[in-house]
Amino acid sequence: MRIGILSAGGDCPGINAAIRGVGKTAIIEYGMEVVGIANGFSGLINLETIPLQEHLLSGILTLGGTILGTSRMKPFRKQEGDPVENKPEAIKMNYEKLGLDALVCIGGNGTQKTAHLLSLEGLNVIGIPKTIDNDVWGTDTTFGFDSAVNIATDAIDRLHSTANSHKRVMVIEVMGHTAGWIALYAGMASGGDIILIPEIEYDMDRVAEVLLERSHKGKAYSIVVVAEGIENPKKKSAGSHIAKQITKMTNLEVRETILGYTQRGGSPSPHDRILATQYGAHAAELIYNRKFGNMVSLQGNDITHIPLSEVGGKVKLVPSNHELIQRGRYMGVSFGEKR
Amino acid sequence: MRIGILSAGGDCPGINAAIRGVGKTAIIEYGMEVVGIANGFSGLINLETIPLQEHLLSGILTLGGTILGTSRMKPFRKQEGDPVENKPEAIKMNYEKLGLDALVCIGGNGTQKTAHLLSLEGLNVIGIPKTIDNDVWGTDTTFGFDSAVNIATDAIDRLHSTANSHKRVMVIEVMGHTAGWIALYAGMASGGDIILIPEIEYDMDRVAEVLLERSHKGKAYSIVVVAEGIENPKKKSAGSHIAKQITKMTNLEVRETILGYTQRGGSPSPHDRILATQYGAHAAELIYNRKFGNMVSLQGNDITHIPLSEVGGKVKLVPSNHELIQRGRYMGVSFGEKR
Amino acid sequence: MRIGILSAGGDCPGINAAIRGVGKTAIIEYGMEVVGIANGFSGLINLETIPLQEHLLSGILTLGGTILGTSRMKPFRKQEGDPVENKPEAIKMNYEKLGLDALVCIGGNGTQKTAHLLSLEGLNVIGIPKTIDNDVWGTDTTFGFDSAVNIATDAIDRLHSTANSHKRVMVIEVMGHTAGWIALYAGMASGGDIILIPEIEYDMDRVAEVLLERSHKGKAYSIVVVAEGIENPKKKSAGSHIAKQITKMTNLEVRETILGYTQRGGSPSPHDRILATQYGAHAAELIYNRKFGNMVSLQGNDITHIPLSEVGGKVKLVPSNHELIQRGRYMGVSFGEKR
Amino acid sequence: MRIGILSAGGDCPGINAAIRGVGKTAIIEYGMEVVGIANGFSGLINLETIPLQEHLLSGILTLGGTILGTSRMKPFRKQEGDPVENKPEAIKMNYEKLGLDALVCIGGNGTQKTAHLLSLEGLNVIGIPKTIDNDVWGTDTTFGFDSAVNIATDAIDRLHSTANSHKRVMVIEVMGHTAGWIALYAGMASGGDIILIPEIEYDMDRVAEVLLERSHKGKAYSIVVVAEGIENPKKKSAGSHIAKQITKMTNLEVRETILGYTQRGGSPSPHDRILATQYGAHAAELIYNRKFGNMVSLQGNDITHIPLSEVGGKVKLVPSNHELIQRGRYMGVSFGEKR
Repeated sequence: MRIGILSAGGDCPGINAAIRGVGKTAIIEYGMEVVGIANGFSGLINLETIPLQEHLLSGILTLGGTILGTSRMKPFRKQEGDPVENKPEAIKMNYEKLGLDALVCIGGNGTQKTAHLLSLEGLNVIGIPKTIDNDVWGTDTTFGFDSAVNIATDAIDRLHSTANSHKRVMVIEVMGHTAGWIALYAGMASGGDIILIPEIEYDMDRVAEVLLERSHKGKAYSIVVVAEGIENPKKKSAGSHIAKQITKMTNLEVRETILGYTQRGGSPSPHDRILATQYGAHAAELIYNRKFGNMVSLQGNDITHIPLSEVGGKVKLVPSNHELIQRGRYMGVSFGEKR
Repeated sequence: MRIGILSAGGDCPGINAAIRGVGKTAIIEYGMEVVGIANGFSGLINLETIPLQEHLLSGILTLGGTILGTSRMKPFRKQEGDPVENKPEAIKMNYEKLGLDALVCIGGNGTQKTAHLLSLEGLNVIGIPKTIDNDVWGTDTTFGFDSAVNIATDAIDRLHSTANSHKRVMVIEVMGHTAGWIALYAGMASGGDIILIPEIEYDMDRVAEVLLERSHKGKAYSIVVVAEGIENPKKKSAGSHIAKQITKMTNLEVRETILGYTQRGGSPSPHDRILATQYGAHAAELIYNRKFGNMVSLQGNDITHIPLSEVGGKVKLVPSNHELIQRGRYMGVSFGEKR
Repeated sequence: MRIGILSAGGDCPGINAAIRGVGKTAIIEYGMEVVGIANGFSGLINLETIPLQEHLLSGILTLGGTILGTSRMKPFRKQEGDPVENKPEAIKMNYEKLGLDALVCIGGNGTQKTAHLLSLEGLNVIGIPKTIDNDVWGTDTTFGFDSAVNIATDAIDRLHSTANSHKRVMVIEVMGHTAGWIALYAGMASGGDIILIPEIEYDMDRVAEVLLERSHKGKAYSIVVVAEGIENPKKKSAGSHIAKQITKMTNLEVRETILGYTQRGGSPSPHDRILATQYGAHAAELIYNRKFGNMVSLQGNDITHIPLSEVGGKVKLVPSNHELIQRGRYMGVSFGEKR
Repeated sequence: MRIGILSAGGDCPGINAAIRGVGKTAIIEYGMEVVGIANGFSGLINLETIPLQEHLLSGILTLGGTILGTSRMKPFRKQEGDPVENKPEAIKMNYEKLGLDALVCIGGNGTQKTAHLLSLEGLNVIGIPKTIDNDVWGTDTTFGFDSAVNIATDAIDRLHSTANSHKRVMVIEVMGHTAGWIALYAGMASGGDIILIPEIEYDMDRVAEVLLERSHKGKAYSIVVVAEGIENPKKKSAGSHIAKQITKMTNLEVRETILGYTQRGGSPSPHDRILATQYGAHAAELIYNRKFGNMVSLQGNDITHIPLSEVGGKVKLVPSNHELIQRGRYMGVSFGEKR
């Protein structure tokens, strides 16, 4: 058998570990051939490949980013400047031309949706979920998330000391367009005082009130962790918006930090390396057993899989009754809700 | 209600987060009083207490070690130099004297066993599992484990570059007296080539053979990760023993590293801070609901609990058919088994 | 003798190490008494003190921020809302009231200027230079700088992998209002391709040209490190300005990151802990020898001192012929100068 | 001109940065050709080369170890199994055969001695000092040292929390066979209580006495930092020896940690990357100006050079009146000297 691997969408720590997981299992355990597709689906349209023999998979476990490159090209959406008229048709042709028996698509929600559509077109497809945002539907966790939480927590840890020295409110914006997983976990791990996530409607008056109460109680400073995707009328930076509002509504000294792209770079955490390795290995197992049309998935402690047809087009949000939110309240954390 | 908290056995990252989790929930959510017991069970015998009001719980989330101190004193084992004749009796008396309605015992297998025995003596006890070794029976994970794996992985990552420069075999011994969890996870996360754990009998001839095969294939170096508890006739350091055997049986240049106590020190990882916080919060919930005689526990994604009577005296070993072992083989890892 | 210590201006890693350095030397070596002044010069005006006995100095070596707090209050500048009419007079009175024989002022350029003016008023003053920006005149290095460079370099290291995956230009703005030391050092340490600092006039056409040349040569991505204080007509964020210009002038995909306050938080680097310790110890030596009116200073390998009269009101910029700039050019780095 | 580069002796963080520094300057600034010699001097004898064009120098700045490999082969010492009868003669022949105009030798004291002898044989040699031990004579600092101090300090930081939890004496052995630089700097940076270095004779009775005094004063724990090269009658591990003696002479609970090879692995610190880059660039400058027979050197703030004839066979020890030792005493640190 001959399998292709590609990574699509935003990059994140652990993609290379997943590529190695698929590749080594396929080659060492099953004697398959493996070929890398460059730059996501656009590489499949333009026939850009990257060799992936066994020795080329050594040493990439710990590397950030993706050795295959990635792109945000969407095969099922017509876009100006498309290299070919009918992109899905081009993909099917090149899948044949490359002699592929299966295609592994590493990516987020968008990529899994495309993977499903390609599956419907008759390709043998396996999806591997990846994103720092942890919002892929159908799996408990994606690799990249633990690494991003580590980076964000480390940054917020640093802000504590400078916030304390200057008696300031520090507002820190972390990634999360649709889902607040990073803000929730990094906020809870770093002792944030207020955590604002897209899934919980916040009340700016309440935010100001909590900060003033803390100040009156003699707390020297406060940490406000904000997901970039919260309601924000200015449509610019959510962190800046919140910081400005606090400044306007209180007499407290406020500073903002936008964490940005550092959250998706660098070497994956050990947890993510292992999760990505297992996802990759299970993807190769699925191919060997010809269980196509599935996305690998973590459910509880089990690495398993779920039909791509169930995944496509959904997003895994933070449930508003998530235990960590309840327990955050026990710790005195406010999620900004109106009382 | 008035509750006591103690930490016993070897320390590990996250104990303070658990103390804060219990304490804040008890105080903020349930209006309880909380008192710290110093130095494990010996503090309960000697009536050494540490105040734990709410403001004293602020800022300890990220601290390594335990603000309560710890000891390895076993109340149900007679030892020379015991401060009192009948230690369990002394504990019961002081539990009364302190006016406690419940006692939270943070510790490993030994501590949970003691907690169970105190429960049988009529005390209202809740156990919280902690250990870097991850070998507490009845829970999927203990806090401290993720932190230890991070530290060990970081160290092995470093060894790769120096191993490669000098074309050496690097043997690294990590913690794990009875169970090989740290060796398995850190070994897999860092791309170890051979991983030796107590649960899998290793064959020294096979270890040497794997290393020579790698060398003949042109691999410049090899990484051997060893749990301290593997079979070791010399009864000194397992890492030294393996390094010496490899030197004797091959012509390869070998160096050893014993990671030691750095694995249990320092600030907990974000994952462990959150797990410990949730364990602590759930312990307070159990007390509020008077569900005594239980140990809090992670099962799949759920923070739940299990009767102490089921936990005591057992150890959670790595199952020899653990998925990560099978997938390690896919990656080309040897576990030293005779072929 | 009885000495006071205060920290003023922006906080930075290492202030606590310096406080410990002064305090332990004064107490252990010279038998002096030491008192902490809270929140910079405003604490001296409001008589807010913090005890600093020997045991309170243990364990602060590694802490970020400042246990004394800090403020930006300027005693010799009239400001609305000033607590007293004549601030310098209030400081002199309280210096007497506290029974001080000397005052140690830890701070940046502004603080050293104030220290000099207080010295002219007859107070026995010693300055200790601190700032992440490394721009204090009269010393080769300030503590805080090495830590900030480490944090910025670590962040830029991370950006490499994500820049590479997406074939992007990453613009990263680091601190440095007046001087480009952090941008120069972190840029050189992390393999930046273009480094823009306030001391070197940049030509936007040249910046775009360098990036296009790199792209044409097949370089997958580029890293642009920008000091916040560079010429920037929009007067908002220098990093955003440069990112927008590049987007406008090239067809390259560009992303920006503003590092912000994480650069001044967290535990000091070992280098900064040692430098701060030595600065603190030397400050106590100077007091013992009644060499008042000086700022401690690193000159080559020597911890020495320089009259405050020579320091006040000056800023240490990056000389445009600095060896590291020349050697940066050897490495292929562009500083954006017109050709 | 055509130049060769080799790295010899123990590896350390920053060698790749130095190789890049030499190579880019030589290629970009001076239009020279550059060739890598594999595995130190043995590669020069066996004619093993590694290409070093400009694009191969990209991306190695941050890599630990050495892409050229290294060996401890000493050309001027007869050894069994030597590949050729007359090694210096073979080196001269291959230097001609490779068409070299100059040879850059990156290494420690032994390598610089060899470099000097090759210089006397008529080769155009430039030395670049490297070692984590910081003991190369003729330069203020070597790259690798700052990185090693960072790693050791980070490890000792971790030990504080576990030492405190268990009220233990922690003995930590760091590298330094002949010189105590790492122990002195990491010990001072991490708040060590006793620091033992080869340059200062220690008295075991005094060590025990200091620890007991600390215990009697109520200090919960103590940290003892030991250089591996201190006087040690058992000739095994210095750290184990000291730990055993303390156990024998006091009733304190003692644990030992031997840091080992993790100190020389991993990515170089920003400081070391910059120092190595500058050393490399200056080496290329010296070649261009035909100033052969020199070792590059840091003196105060200047990157300069010193004749190899002055360097060979000497070691830079910690002077017993080093300012940091005196200031360590101010901080309450004992160096174990008899009183």
